Amino acid sequence: MRICLSIILFFMAPYLRAENGHELWLRAKNTGEVTIVCSKESPTLTIAKQELTQGWQGKSGAKIVLNIKKDKAIKGDGFKFTENEIQANTELGILYGVYELLRRQQLKQAVKEEISNPSYELRVLNHWDNMDGTIERGYAGASIFWHDEDKGYAVTDKDKSIWREYARANASIGINGAVLNNVNASQLMLTTECLKKVKAIAEVLRPYGIKTYLSVKFSSPSLIGGLKTADPLDPAVIGWWKNKIKEIYSLIPDFGGFLVKANSEGQPGPQDFGRTHADGANMMADALKPYGGIVMWRAFVYEANSKDRACQAYKEFMPLDGKFRDNIIVQVKNGPIDFQPREPFNPLFGAMKKTSVMPELQITQEYLGHSIHLVYLAPMWEECLNSETYQEGIGSTVARTTDGSIFPQKHTAIAGVANIGIDANWCGHHFAQSNWYAFGRLAWNNQLTSEKIADEWIKQTFANGEPSNDWYVNFLAPVKQIMLKSREVAVDYMMPLGFHHIFAPSDHYGPGPWWGPQDVRKDWTPPYYHKADTFGVGFDRTISGSDAVSQYSEPLRSQLNNLQTCPETYLLWFHHVSWSHKMQSGRTLWDEICYRYDAGQKQVREFQKEWDKVQPYMDAERFFAVQSKLRSQSQNVRIWKDGCLLYFQQFSKMPIPYDIERPVYELDYIIKNFTIDKP
Amino acid sequence: MRICLSIILFFMAPYLRAENGHELWLRAKNTGEVTIVCSKESPTLTIAKQELTQGWQGKSGAKIVLNIKKDKAIKGDGFKFTENEIQANTELGILYGVYELLRRQQLKQAVKEEISNPSYELRVLNHWDNMDGTIERGYAGASIFWHDEDKGYAVTDKDKSIWREYARANASIGINGAVLNNVNASQLMLTTECLKKVKAIAEVLRPYGIKTYLSVKFSSPSLIGGLKTADPLDPAVIGWWKNKIKEIYSLIPDFGGFLVKANSEGQPGPQDFGRTHADGANMMADALKPYGGIVMWRAFVYEANSKDRACQAYKEFMPLDGKFRDNIIVQVKNGPIDFQPREPFNPLFGAMKKTSVMPELQITQEYLGHSIHLVYLAPMWEECLNSETYQEGIGSTVARTTDGSIFPQKHTAIAGVANIGIDANWCGHHFAQSNWYAFGRLAWNNQLTSEKIADEWIKQTFANGEPSNDWYVNFLAPVKQIMLKSREVAVDYMMPLGFHHIFAPSDHYGPGPWWGPQDVRKDWTPPYYHKADTFGVGFDRTISGSDAVSQYSEPLRSQLNNLQTCPETYLLWFHHVSWSHKMQSGRTLWDEICYRYDAGQKQVREFQKEWDKVQPYMDAERFFAVQSKLRSQSQNVRIWKDGCLLYFQQFSKMPIPYDIERPVYELDYIIKNFTIDKP
Repeated sequence: MRICLSIILFFMAPYLRAENGHELWLRAKNTGEVTIVCSKESPTLTIAKQELTQGWQGKSGAKIVLNIKKDKAIKGDGFKFTENEIQANTELGILYGVYELLRRQQLKQAVKEEISNPSYELRVLNHWDNMDGTIERGYAGASIFWHDEDKGYAVTDKDKSIWREYARANASIGINGAVLNNVNASQLMLTTECLKKVKAIAEVLRPYGIKTYLSVKFSSPSLIGGLKTADPLDPAVIGWWKNKIKEIYSLIPDFGGFLVKANSEGQPGPQDFGRTHADGANMMADALKPYGGIVMWRAFVYEANSKDRACQAYKEFMPLDGKFRDNIIVQVKNGPIDFQPREPFNPLFGAMKKTSVMPELQITQEYLGHSIHLVYLAPMWEECLNSETYQEGIGSTVARTTDGSIFPQKHTAIAGVANIGIDANWCGHHFAQSNWYAFGRLAWNNQLTSEKIADEWIKQTFANGEPSNDWYVNFLAPVKQIMLKSREVAVDYMMPLGFHHIFAPSDHYGPGPWWGPQDVRKDWTPPYYHKADTFGVGFDRTISGSDAVSQYSEPLRSQLNNLQTCPETYLLWFHHVSWSHKMQSGRTLWDEICYRYDAGQKQVREFQKEWDKVQPYMDAERFFAVQSKLRSQSQNVRIWKDGCLLYFQQFSKMPIPYDIERPVYELDYIIKNFTIDKP
Repeated sequence: MRICLSIILFFMAPYLRAENGHELWLRAKNTGEVTIVCSKESPTLTIAKQELTQGWQGKSGAKIVLNIKKDKAIKGDGFKFTENEIQANTELGILYGVYELLRRQQLKQAVKEEISNPSYELRVLNHWDNMDGTIERGYAGASIFWHDEDKGYAVTDKDKSIWREYARANASIGINGAVLNNVNASQLMLTTECLKKVKAIAEVLRPYGIKTYLSVKFSSPSLIGGLKTADPLDPAVIGWWKNKIKEIYSLIPDFGGFLVKANSEGQPGPQDFGRTHADGANMMADALKPYGGIVMWRAFVYEANSKDRACQAYKEFMPLDGKFRDNIIVQVKNGPIDFQPREPFNPLFGAMKKTSVMPELQITQEYLGHSIHLVYLAPMWEECLNSETYQEGIGSTVARTTDGSIFPQKHTAIAGVANIGIDANWCGHHFAQSNWYAFGRLAWNNQLTSEKIADEWIKQTFANGEPSNDWYVNFLAPVKQIMLKSREVAVDYMMPLGFHHIFAPSDHYGPGPWWGPQDVRKDWTPPYYHKADTFGVGFDRTISGSDAVSQYSEPLRSQLNNLQTCPETYLLWFHHVSWSHKMQSGRTLWDEICYRYDAGQKQVREFQKEWDKVQPYMDAERFFAVQSKLRSQSQNVRIWKDGCLLYFQQFSKMPIPYDIERPVYELDYIIKNFTIDKP
């Protein structure tokens, strides 16, 4: 009987509706009539009304009131809603309330009176889109904003249509800002010709409440302004920025502000002129202030010859705490290195008490399998946001030290590096859409669990009409489990136990722990990070090592510093540990490493099985696309496991436990075929 | 403690003696003095004495008598031996007795009085060596006999040294003949210049009792003889062959005879002139008769447009039974198709009752993973030799119908297509040496079990001096199990349940069930053999199909013809079976196919584990070489499994059972990367 059923279902699947995923999580179709009462008119309210009409799944013939009315309990663009009314301080609040109401309807959740306020004032996507249409760390095709040289700054109806869909998707999850270009910015961004295109984009995004921001190159005054310097204290430079900002606001009255990567990885900055990050940021902040613009200044800095790259940002920025203007927000990556599959939180969180600090998360999977691996990132972000900094006692989580709960920041914000491109499904991998979704949802409410977000996303993305009970049991449940496990599994098969940055150079996709040419700066090579030798492996960041632990507050500092109390998830991040060190499992470190890589491989194979089983419950096109990606992921995991175990075995000189599936590749083969020679 | 031991052993391994495998199974060093009494002198007896002196492991100071004395109980080059005496009819019998005595000593087996007679009179290697030094289906480097054009027919001391080692290895296992060149023969083989080189080879092989044979091209009289025809009934042609044979015997007085592939796969033959195979073979046999030479005439024939290639040889040769001269032996491949991983026995065995018939086995692994896969072939040959033909009632096994037990053949013989090349380890894969060894041992005694042969081979090849008890438990036992399972495992992961010839074209290495271009003769394409369609899969050879079953004797014919009684190992060989046919396991055919491929994959992974564990018990060089080959094999198995399951799933339209590890490759990728376009 089981067999017969399988066969029937297997046959049925291809006849389910095929589709390419372009609709994202916005699939609700109205199932009844609704009367909308709204006393005001505006482009944003028009959208709100359209959405209600198109997507209404509540009682047919119901009436709903959209009510813009001040209420102290409602913060910013938050809203209060019941089954029949949405109240907000702002038009945008109304629109957000509409999306929330429709979401509840689609999720079959009861609606009681409730207020929903955003955790962060600014919820911003950072697009690392280059002006030639390519995207740094983009894995879903070309930029939706910029074209290659042939098309230049042209704006077509098709462009506008995509931007509108993009804005709608963002608004539906509460995102209210977009930095349109790469932090490794081109000076051409600020040319008048280019700014006119930005104006066109901003006009499409505006009704959806998405403010436009730009990444700027610090040396723009000399590069395109004809000045001899970009010294932030030079009056001509200050004047140039003031004029440029005035020009921008004349085109885009609600322009959001600048994002700046300065004195980092070769980018120019104030230090080139003997000035501090604060000097540079304040100069820009002063010029933006009159228009309400802000500066997001990145703390992602590290010297080429630093003894420990993980310590650098803290060392450079802590002395500047309190020296930044109040319309500056220091943008800090979640961890102290660079968007690794797992990092401890960045010690600047909670430590900079007199500065607005915003987390920078990476939605695009630079270090997490690009658009090939199925990795749901919300658990990683949840882990970071819920990390205890202890900077103001227990409860000083990263979330609370950045969202205004603890420090009186003028602005609160959170940024996500986008994974969006021109591909039909926007993100390359259908499941990568969940990371865009999750970022928006967490930015709105940093207490949401990754489980709840996954549940919401799956239902909105895959449920087709009224799903059956079977669908809940055989689709929703297993797919949610895959998502929830996926990041920990990626950590296991890429870099368990605190390993970090052992990626192949340049593309950061496959393994590369062996890669370390003499002529490349050391902190761009994996051996700098893993420090494997015949004794053991791991980076000694204890007080007798690089002392990175001392950038954390007690009791965390002591906990991390002690080999016995340091969480094993961060073991090799903070300690250089003997291969025969006894782990909590009772195994040696070497054996534990082997079992982790193996567990990762086994889990991905389980994901494949689970996925194949859901075939009868979904459309063929997305089923096969994801199946194919999982196959590739499973292949890649083999490369990770074989490559890392065979490489580190050269140091441990210990056998891979014999109950573990053996390598099928030679290390030399992997090195030759899966490492790119130059970064 | 277990861990510590592992570590110590892991470290130790590299310090064990490294070696390249060139010594084969001939590693015995003398451990004591021996006095040899022998009243005669000859090159062969000199070798016998040298071997005894070099390899003596019996009581030190013992005396042994080599006694050439007729004894009716001793047949051909057989021998009688005790601890102190070897008696034989011939010098070669003495040499064989010496090798057997030394083997018993090395295997620590007691020696009682015993007679050992060979199962077959002629125990011949067929070298498919081309005269340019390449080897058809050779995977161990170039020919040891022939060089590329630059060297031509030159004979160096190094050549002679290799030939001597080769002859010694053959003699040690009882092989007494070698066909020096490819059955797809060049006419140049019979030129005087070339025959002089053959003479040089024969002189080196002679003292070891290896007779020299040549493959000849049937059209040689016209190609190099200046005649207008090669018609076997043409007096000029007959004259040409007589003269050529006379010339050969003037150079090589003990020349063995010819091997002929005629009217097969484009080779010329008597049918080109309206004559039969018997006409062609008899002409040559008559010319060879005066010198004691024989003709081995191959039955491997099939027409391009045959309805069933498997029926062809029987159809062509059965009418000729009784028409061949008594110095002709018809050489019949073990199965009716072509050295597949599993075939039913060739129906000519036992059916040709008035003709000498010899089995042709393939030692080189054309269809069994070349020199990459570890596949011990003795179980396959044992299976064939022990197959009941029922042609003369119960007990008419393939072995007994070919070794003279049942039919009064003038000559008995067995041939093995060699896997020998110039590589240091002779056979490419260290374990491929076991197949050379096993062929020799089975040719001498076709009742030996593959288990006993494996035991002998492992001990002689890997035991170093006096092995410890640990070695028996942790090396001999698991390695023997790997060997004994290896062929059934290969069947599982390549072509279980009677699948056959679904190989990639040309190289016959990877899977190619999909390969069937329109412009290629159908019987060279896999779909001709598997006949997959939406109903099912397999070749209908029942009486309502091609009727190949009727070439077998009752009760076998009826057993094979009936879907319910046909052994599942041959199911798809004889039947076109519904995908949902219920197998003995209770599974559907489709599921059973899936589980078989999966079982093959799991087993190869187990082999890898078992092999990795033996590292402490052997030399590093061979350990790592085999480890590396097993890794490649494991990769290949993945291609086989994914490729075959995804391909056949297109017909079955049934899901791969969900407890089976999912494919990691796309079918298109495998087709593109693992199929060669033209045969």
